[in-house]
Amino acid sequence: MPTLRLALCQVNPTVGDLAGNAGLVRSWTRQAADAGAQLVLFPELMLTGYPVEDLVFRRSFVAASRAALHRLAADLAADGLGDLPVLVGYLDADGPPQVSSDAEPGRGARNAAAVLHRGEVVATYFKHHLPNYGVFDEDRYFVSGDTLTVVRVGGVDVALTICEDLWQAGGPFAVAREAGVGLVLSINGSPYELNKDDVRLPLVRRRAAEAGAAIAYVNMVGGQDELVYDGDSMVVAADGTLLTRAPQFVEHLLVHDLELPAATGAPGGTVAPADGMRVARHEIPAIPAAPSGPAADGGIIEPVADEAEVWHALVLGLRDYIDKNRFPSVVLGLSGGIDSAVAAAIAVDAVGPERVVGVSMPSQHSSEHSRTDAEDLAKRTGLDYRVEPIQPMVDTFLANMSLSGVAVENLQARVRGVILMALSNQEGHLVLTTGNKSELAVGYSTLYGDSVGGYNPVKDVWKTLVWRLAKWRNTDAVRRGQTPPIPENSIGKPPSAELSPGQLDSDTLPDYDVLDPILIGYVDGDLGRDGLVESGHDPAVVDKVLRMVDTAEYKRRQSAPGTKISMKAFGRDRRLPITNRWREDG
Amino acid sequence: MPTLRLALCQVNPTVGDLAGNAGLVRSWTRQAADAGAQLVLFPELMLTGYPVEDLVFRRSFVAASRAALHRLAADLAADGLGDLPVLVGYLDADGPPQVSSDAEPGRGARNAAAVLHRGEVVATYFKHHLPNYGVFDEDRYFVSGDTLTVVRVGGVDVALTICEDLWQAGGPFAVAREAGVGLVLSINGSPYELNKDDVRLPLVRRRAAEAGAAIAYVNMVGGQDELVYDGDSMVVAADGTLLTRAPQFVEHLLVHDLELPAATGAPGGTVAPADGMRVARHEIPAIPAAPSGPAADGGIIEPVADEAEVWHALVLGLRDYIDKNRFPSVVLGLSGGIDSAVAAAIAVDAVGPERVVGVSMPSQHSSEHSRTDAEDLAKRTGLDYRVEPIQPMVDTFLANMSLSGVAVENLQARVRGVILMALSNQEGHLVLTTGNKSELAVGYSTLYGDSVGGYNPVKDVWKTLVWRLAKWRNTDAVRRGQTPPIPENSIGKPPSAELSPGQLDSDTLPDYDVLDPILIGYVDGDLGRDGLVESGHDPAVVDKVLRMVDTAEYKRRQSAPGTKISMKAFGRDRRLPITNRWREDG
Repeated sequence: MPTLRLALCQVNPTVGDLAGNAGLVRSWTRQAADAGAQLVLFPELMLTGYPVEDLVFRRSFVAASRAALHRLAADLAADGLGDLPVLVGYLDADGPPQVSSDAEPGRGARNAAAVLHRGEVVATYFKHHLPNYGVFDEDRYFVSGDTLTVVRVGGVDVALTICEDLWQAGGPFAVAREAGVGLVLSINGSPYELNKDDVRLPLVRRRAAEAGAAIAYVNMVGGQDELVYDGDSMVVAADGTLLTRAPQFVEHLLVHDLELPAATGAPGGTVAPADGMRVARHEIPAIPAAPSGPAADGGIIEPVADEAEVWHALVLGLRDYIDKNRFPSVVLGLSGGIDSAVAAAIAVDAVGPERVVGVSMPSQHSSEHSRTDAEDLAKRTGLDYRVEPIQPMVDTFLANMSLSGVAVENLQARVRGVILMALSNQEGHLVLTTGNKSELAVGYSTLYGDSVGGYNPVKDVWKTLVWRLAKWRNTDAVRRGQTPPIPENSIGKPPSAELSPGQLDSDTLPDYDVLDPILIGYVDGDLGRDGLVESGHDPAVVDKVLRMVDTAEYKRRQSAPGTKISMKAFGRDRRLPITNRWREDG
Repeated sequence: MPTLRLALCQVNPTVGDLAGNAGLVRSWTRQAADAGAQLVLFPELMLTGYPVEDLVFRRSFVAASRAALHRLAADLAADGLGDLPVLVGYLDADGPPQVSSDAEPGRGARNAAAVLHRGEVVATYFKHHLPNYGVFDEDRYFVSGDTLTVVRVGGVDVALTICEDLWQAGGPFAVAREAGVGLVLSINGSPYELNKDDVRLPLVRRRAAEAGAAIAYVNMVGGQDELVYDGDSMVVAADGTLLTRAPQFVEHLLVHDLELPAATGAPGGTVAPADGMRVARHEIPAIPAAPSGPAADGGIIEPVADEAEVWHALVLGLRDYIDKNRFPSVVLGLSGGIDSAVAAAIAVDAVGPERVVGVSMPSQHSSEHSRTDAEDLAKRTGLDYRVEPIQPMVDTFLANMSLSGVAVENLQARVRGVILMALSNQEGHLVLTTGNKSELAVGYSTLYGDSVGGYNPVKDVWKTLVWRLAKWRNTDAVRRGQTPPIPENSIGKPPSAELSPGQLDSDTLPDYDVLDPILIGYVDGDLGRDGLVESGHDPAVVDKVLRMVDTAEYKRRQSAPGTKISMKAFGRDRRLPITNRWREDG
């Protein structure tokens, strides 16, 4: 049986940064070669980053992706790495990019993978199953490939697949079995989701059984806007045995030796249709010799606790948002409460205390502890702490306008928003906002007030999970002999917006341990009113909560939609690239 | 040849308002019956409104749509209208709604149409071609139907189709020819787009030729969030002759007599596959007798000028946003400039001057004319005019913080935003923001400042079109013997943000007659940098503009995205219904 030394490069590309991403491929391929690798894998759409969204509609971008691929092949050869086959994801299109029609500009685009060898693109594969649910929109952007690409590498037949191909039964993995391959490569841009790692391994095992072949699964890592990729790359044998598994949330080179069945039959040519797909065969004439010395074993990383996993996801997501968008630093308001304390601790873990500014903005309704707890947090974490009292500005508004009730409450939050944005304009910080998912769901926040900000680290974190994260982070600090970052008082005290005398969240909302399970059932569980009541919640509380969620929907929508008079307006169908680095003007 | 009197009901449903939409069907069917109609058509997804988006994932909503359809059939019969066949769009799902799996909750959903007759649902059709581009996401929500439904009505074979079925060649219209039908009904939720009416008629003609049959095309009318439906319903003969055409942007009952070929062959049963689709045949045993008296002729409305068309679209879009969301009134800042003047005139046309509050918010940099032009606008339109000077608040911020440059400029816009939101909280107004599409594209606005607001009537209007709209509206007023609403001075003076002494837009931006063609090429035309230069634009200006657009993308994105840790977070994949009326708690 031939043995192949695989190198799975779990790396962090940036959307639009073709040159930087190609540079990553070159440096990691060098490291893989140094480790004796004979076959190297990079993630889905490695060259362009993922998701590319409306960049797909830019013919200039598709052309640049193709050019970058060919340049990369040449550069790897020039680096002396030409003999090492490298699988890399990139964006392609049928024919020359300029042929795609105006009416359907993206219809010819392909989510593609290429094997580079000796300075050439020797084989390509176009993703077959396109996901079009949740955060995925690939039916909008890509056409589906209908050919399974099989490459003979070191005497082993290896099939190429991309991400969603793994998540649906039938198609490439079934055809791989018919084609008799020994190994399936699966390159991924698979976003993190709580407990997704628990789903991934059984899924890879199921596909290994379907293909009757080992699977090498490589996923990207890093944050891209709202998405964070967790890595979790792995190799699974044909019988379902987990052979090696990489850690989550860090870049990692996973090198592992794999014994594989020798290929039989003719190595080249395209065979007739099988299971609705064709099979195209290629052969790589020579690869680096099997290294001497002990066999490479990538080891198996065990999954961590939920709180640790979420914490690392939030830290990585925030760090990459800051750094990929080139913000020098962040600023956030510190109320002494749990949400801003957790957001600040995440920010400090992400970019260090010297790049985090925390501002206490007390009003006449602020408790003494709102300020001392914020100060305590600043001392524990070492962030840059400031105090900007809001009362003079609030009083001036009140002296010049006739306001009462909720208008006065919201005014205070809005003055704080103006202060944070002024500091952002003056000093260049990204403003962080800190409303948790429970608050956002029921609309317990001030539009254009505490919701002001360029990024929200805890936007997708239910309030009860915010508390659990705080406790986990403090405990973990103690375990490591460090100062717990979050003041115990911020964790223990009853939540309050402090916008009117003695105000508490519980004046308006059910207790969070009642509220969160209802919201989780409604949002995550897709339960309706009746389903929630059937699962044991008090009907009156359910009705109250759902009414708040419906009302809050208006608040979430009040970020200035406007009547479309063209189908190329900004907004949902944005027609402008989301990109961190790509520039049309070169 | 049989003659059928058709009634095309170009009406305005509301998303989520099942009871209200069913009420519309009943009252318009009554009017159609009074006009002697023998077959009545309502738009796509009439019962639920369009687009339903993530409401599709609510099993309770699908069940409610089906229940509403059956109740409607019974109610029409009870109204004495049972003999009149009525075609109505609704949301359906395969099998009982509760069987759709948790993994793919929307996969069984259908964009459906039903013929109601004598208290029963006598035939249904499921949309075949699902649009998944631009504002459409139907691959995400619906499964495609594979059966063409043909109903024999008054001796004529009539095929049912829905919207996108018309926009793609092949499928239902080709099968309709094979099935030998005399008439194809096309029910639509087709959003307005500048010049779309110029595309629609040739398209309907092409499909009439493909089907070899007449086409009755009915479209909804009204605003739904960012979309506005323009109506433009019509009937075209098999030879392509336009027989009747309704006006745009108003509800309209289009009644027209149509001579049609008598059906031959067996009326019922399902025939074998044709062109990938099956054909299911039904027969309606009896319809109301042909009315005596003169033939009904719906007449032909001629298209209006672009400016008139856009103006009516913006007025209708804003009116329905206000009224469907039940806002009592709107408030907006009046700078004396053209954008706020046009937005105010649109608002007054939409809901009347007594529901529009205009606020002049002068600063130390405000010119005399900024106030007098705003006042003049208020007098011309009769809106509720207020003055709220911002200098005391701006001065208090400046006394308490060390700000300079752009931070001071933006502070003024943000104080204005706080004032408008305070008035909104105090008095219940919806805040309108008034940045035009050119400004938004290049980021020439203040985040959380002049961009504050719940709706933007001119969000999708290029600056040069704002001026054309203003001139058209004034000229039209003169033509009708009314006071032109927009002060000539607001139209004629050079644009300025007035955030620093003597500031003009032209200090920062190319002239709008240079800027707009570049932006239009880039955004609407999908031209890249090289394509823009090839079409004659100065390369240095193109590079400058594209750099501004790229930078502005950050500003547009700074409305607090946050790291997703679940696939059911708010945002792009919102997982909560967009609805104006549907309530889970009943």
